[in-house]
Amino acid sequence: MKPTITAFANSPDQGQGLARDMRVRWALEEVGQPYNVLCRPIEELKEPDYLAIQPFGQIPAYIEGDLTIFETGSIILHVAQTRPGLLPDEPNARARAITWMFAALSTIEPPVVAREAELMLEKDKPWAKERKPLLDQRVGDRLKSLSARLGDAEWLDGDFSAGDLLMIEVLVRLENDGLVEEFPNLAAYVARGKARPAFKRALDAQHEAFEETREVENADAG
Amino acid sequence: MKPTITAFANSPDQGQGLARDMRVRWALEEVGQPYNVLCRPIEELKEPDYLAIQPFGQIPAYIEGDLTIFETGSIILHVAQTRPGLLPDEPNARARAITWMFAALSTIEPPVVAREAELMLEKDKPWAKERKPLLDQRVGDRLKSLSARLGDAEWLDGDFSAGDLLMIEVLVRLENDGLVEEFPNLAAYVARGKARPAFKRALDAQHEAFEETREVENADAG
Repeated sequence: MKPTITAFANSPDQGQGLARDMRVRWALEEVGQPYNVLCRPIEELKEPDYLAIQPFGQIPAYIEGDLTIFETGSIILHVAQTRPGLLPDEPNARARAITWMFAALSTIEPPVVAREAELMLEKDKPWAKERKPLLDQRVGDRLKSLSARLGDAEWLDGDFSAGDLLMIEVLVRLENDGLVEEFPNLAAYVARGKARPAFKRALDAQHEAFEETREVENADAG
Repeated sequence: MKPTITAFANSPDQGQGLARDMRVRWALEEVGQPYNVLCRPIEELKEPDYLAIQPFGQIPAYIEGDLTIFETGSIILHVAQTRPGLLPDEPNARARAITWMFAALSTIEPPVVAREAELMLEKDKPWAKERKPLLDQRVGDRLKSLSARLGDAEWLDGDFSAGDLLMIEVLVRLENDGLVEEFPNLAAYVARGKARPAFKRALDAQHEAFEETREVENADAG
């Protein structure tokens, strides 16, 4: 049975791939698992029927038979634990790969998202200019540690894993900001992730879904 | 073989239990796993020998035989997957409990920690007063969703799990701020967690470790 994921019906970032269903699509592509997508307009995410699936009114959620879960970390861990390809079999190596999943979400992503949200939502506030260096530094400090650990390795711990997938997805949010580029090994790491065929298939699929919605909207307006 | 966790040698919060080794101690107490603690002065967390264990220079790390991992989410998941008591056996219920672990760390904790850090580090900045309501609201929005989902249940999904443990540990950070108290069911949920014998044993153990360090420091100064 194909699992179903939920996604935005409309792209808040004009299809740049930042909506978090991209992470789950990438994971599903890596393990070769076909899936269905239930697209939901952003303005309908706080309605009771959706909150029953995802209590915070966010995308993506993941539905597979009787199982409904949310949080990209949890979904990807579930996919990785039930299909081969995203986690090593050896127990210690597996625990270390899972550690990188949590590091991506708990240590790297929070300052990245806080910076992104504030630069967008508070850009006209009187403190915007003075806080920018603080926001950049909080991200930069974490990237410096990550860069030091990665060194000249291809991936964070042995073969490509779900930990790399989530870490690269977080770093992709900083693209064009120059912060990742200060660490050439991190920039190359992100490029390696994006060069994976599964990443490209996922990005194309997300883009295609937005295009279909746009066509429907245009038809509806016509 | 007893696992070893790392912790601060000195309490940055005067033993209130907010240092993140508390979460891991609580998990280990819940499953009845004795452990050793390696206390490290805060100012020595960025030294190469410690960064080899924890690349971001944070506590706690977890060492068990050949395995070294970090991130409280990853450590607690490892403990819960290798000892009974923190996750249900039934696969779907287990995936849902793990979802709450990620929700605690990825959805609830980031605005809580961002608020806490900013109220402390930027309290003298000209924007402090105007940003406070924004910070409160970001936390409040998430608590509102959490409260609605919890309803009048005892725990988030069936029996107490590692998901509740992490969620309660995040909510504890807001104590005395009045934000959790706006949702009586969340306040009662936190109280239920703190009333667990394993929570109390963990808090006592953390406190005791700080007291020992203080005695050593006093002896050293005498």
